[in-house]
Amino acid sequence: MDYINLNYRPNEGDLLSCMVIKGENLEKLANEIAGESSIGTWTKVQTMKSDIYEKLRPKVYEIKEIGEENGYKVGLIKIAYPLYDFEINNMPGVLAGIAGNIFGMKIAKGLRILDFRFPAEFVKAYKGPRFGIEGVRETLKIKERPLLGTIVKPKVGLKTEEHAKVAYEAWVGGVDLVKDDENLTSQEFNKFEDRIYKTLEMRDKAEEETGERKAYMPNITAPYREMIRRAEIAEDAGSEYVMIDVVVCGFSAVQSFREEDFKFIIHAHRAMHAAMTRSRDFGISMLALAKIYRLLGVDQLHIGTVVGKMEGGEKEVKAIRDEIVYDKVEADNENKFFNQDWFDIKPVFPVSSGGVHPRLVPKIVEILGRDLIIQAGGGVHGHPDGTRAGAKAMRAAIEAIIEGKSLEEKAEEVAELKKALEYWK
Amino acid sequence: MDYINLNYRPNEGDLLSCMVIKGENLEKLANEIAGESSIGTWTKVQTMKSDIYEKLRPKVYEIKEIGEENGYKVGLIKIAYPLYDFEINNMPGVLAGIAGNIFGMKIAKGLRILDFRFPAEFVKAYKGPRFGIEGVRETLKIKERPLLGTIVKPKVGLKTEEHAKVAYEAWVGGVDLVKDDENLTSQEFNKFEDRIYKTLEMRDKAEEETGERKAYMPNITAPYREMIRRAEIAEDAGSEYVMIDVVVCGFSAVQSFREEDFKFIIHAHRAMHAAMTRSRDFGISMLALAKIYRLLGVDQLHIGTVVGKMEGGEKEVKAIRDEIVYDKVEADNENKFFNQDWFDIKPVFPVSSGGVHPRLVPKIVEILGRDLIIQAGGGVHGHPDGTRAGAKAMRAAIEAIIEGKSLEEKAEEVAELKKALEYWK
Repeated sequence: MDYINLNYRPNEGDLLSCMVIKGENLEKLANEIAGESSIGTWTKVQTMKSDIYEKLRPKVYEIKEIGEENGYKVGLIKIAYPLYDFEINNMPGVLAGIAGNIFGMKIAKGLRILDFRFPAEFVKAYKGPRFGIEGVRETLKIKERPLLGTIVKPKVGLKTEEHAKVAYEAWVGGVDLVKDDENLTSQEFNKFEDRIYKTLEMRDKAEEETGERKAYMPNITAPYREMIRRAEIAEDAGSEYVMIDVVVCGFSAVQSFREEDFKFIIHAHRAMHAAMTRSRDFGISMLALAKIYRLLGVDQLHIGTVVGKMEGGEKEVKAIRDEIVYDKVEADNENKFFNQDWFDIKPVFPVSSGGVHPRLVPKIVEILGRDLIIQAGGGVHGHPDGTRAGAKAMRAAIEAIIEGKSLEEKAEEVAELKKALEYWK
Repeated sequence: MDYINLNYRPNEGDLLSCMVIKGENLEKLANEIAGESSIGTWTKVQTMKSDIYEKLRPKVYEIKEIGEENGYKVGLIKIAYPLYDFEINNMPGVLAGIAGNIFGMKIAKGLRILDFRFPAEFVKAYKGPRFGIEGVRETLKIKERPLLGTIVKPKVGLKTEEHAKVAYEAWVGGVDLVKDDENLTSQEFNKFEDRIYKTLEMRDKAEEETGERKAYMPNITAPYREMIRRAEIAEDAGSEYVMIDVVVCGFSAVQSFREEDFKFIIHAHRAMHAAMTRSRDFGISMLALAKIYRLLGVDQLHIGTVVGKMEGGEKEVKAIRDEIVYDKVEADNENKFFNQDWFDIKPVFPVSSGGVHPRLVPKIVEILGRDLIIQAGGGVHGHPDGTRAGAKAMRAAIEAIIEGKSLEEKAEEVAELKKALEYWK
């Protein structure tokens, strides 16, 4: 069956997919990809009906050869899927079609999904963030500056009391948000039930002392029923947040959790994403994943630092920021391949985390702007004078930006910053 | 901090990971991977305690340089993690550590997890399959021969009645199992609630007519709460099976679903796996994923056909089969890098699906053996005389093996097989 129609102009209601592919014959490959992601089979079937072909067939409407690699042609293709193909508010089911078997087809020597365009009816079938940037700022009473977060370090191993104490030190030093690390769940040495109450006790103490709003982001990553049990405990303990490792948990759990009745701000950590976003041969871009998580309704999402220890170049990270923050996004045909209208879907707070310390703060804010959560783990707990000093130094680096001062100027006022700048060149 | 200890001999209780890595300096990269997947930070932190380092640090106990690529060294490394690092019965949480941030580290120019060795205490923390091969054979009263499955085609688009009719035709032609395709969930044209009752009605009719046990595998892929709702409907309708797209649903949903009280045989489709299993640069092997799904407790899992339309060479597919079927598996240091004892975890029924037709059946069984579910979609519904004839042809191809006949000999007895062999050369 033929799905190629280079004269087709996608209509507003189509779901569009853009991918880079590699194969012997781009047309043949593009046609098989369109079939395998919709109604196709490797051979003609007697059970096919003409109205099915008419109503459900996707159209490959763009095929651009862009290079050659190991003797294979490399092409950029775009496919338009009629929404009728899908149960549109079932993200796992939709992805089983448009991002399912196609990666495993022998004929494909490379297949990487770069972007999706979700049409109005599709976007409106999803809740999106409950709080979004504005809601988080209101909750924390922080109008304009970037938010400062830390992750309790070491990643795992501290006992519950030690964990809560480190959180307290960070809060009173000036950190707004304290997060569990992605691999801390409910280990022997730091059980979830104890940790949440003890850490929130420290939050309240820090709020009293600082007069500032503070928040804790407990990691409820677990099998779904257990996730719900931990969320109920977090609710009982008075947490405004929960944190989920959204990739290792999976789309079914993330969509379903957002549709529960909880009123949490959902912080999304993306551990394991690079297993499918980093290869240039097979996989899906972080930009496409980030758009999916915005629809599913996380409130905060890690997108990279550009300057820290994690991969992700400036243009790509900025493009991801655009897609999760703005209401209307325009294609740049480099990282964003479609115009995307987000209608009433609230913006997701971008999070920069991974190898951050005070010296990097100005550059990160310059690149990603002030609507940003800057998280430093080592950059706080690695300060020569400890966590509280490290928090002060990071907070001072952020305030320097707000006050239009250089780090060096601010360091003259804040000794902890001065020491941090000497320590991390 | 230093995690390299090439004299370390892993003890029985360690969780082991084997990966191929690419970087400028293999020792430095291996050390950072060990840290990032456990207790490490990019800089020394004041909050680290010596007992944490002693008790929780993983050991890089093997580093073998195996090549060079684009100026980077390529190495095979093995890491031993103390179980104490983990909440062992929380698979998403465990993976957030051992398969989380490490893929995104700038210093890693390539990182692909090849295999895990799960120790006794870890394996015993999981349920594994409820039925496994024996339980499925008992349910379907099929002692020895491979099971024959089909997928209703076209993948999506048929109305509910049409879908049920195709299933009936396949069953009476000789198919044992009829499956929804991975992208059929509850679309406008074929709602789950209708489909399940109508298709099971046809199952019962086919059972009566054939005197054989027949089964339907409805796709309950959805956000978790909706998955449970559909499972309850399937239970009410008398289905012995459910099918889940395990990769797009995710580890949290799959583990939690198995821990529910349902008594279903769980058929696991792996759509989207190749987004992270196929690249040689970044990702995780299908073998490692298959071991995880065996622990989580799926009863049937797609592993490839070797000869059909999906990628996956003979050695790799056989190695995956070994890992999901046998009680004790020995390393071959090609696809299996550890000896693995599965203790009481039942075997998973391997499924070969994708581009299968009668002519390929002998080769598939020769490679993968008789404890196998052979699924043909196009290979049944594409038969010139339709679904029932296609089912007869596939069933005859399987019976030829049991009877020790060649396809050609069997084709003399079964006209539908003869026609299929002429049609698909």
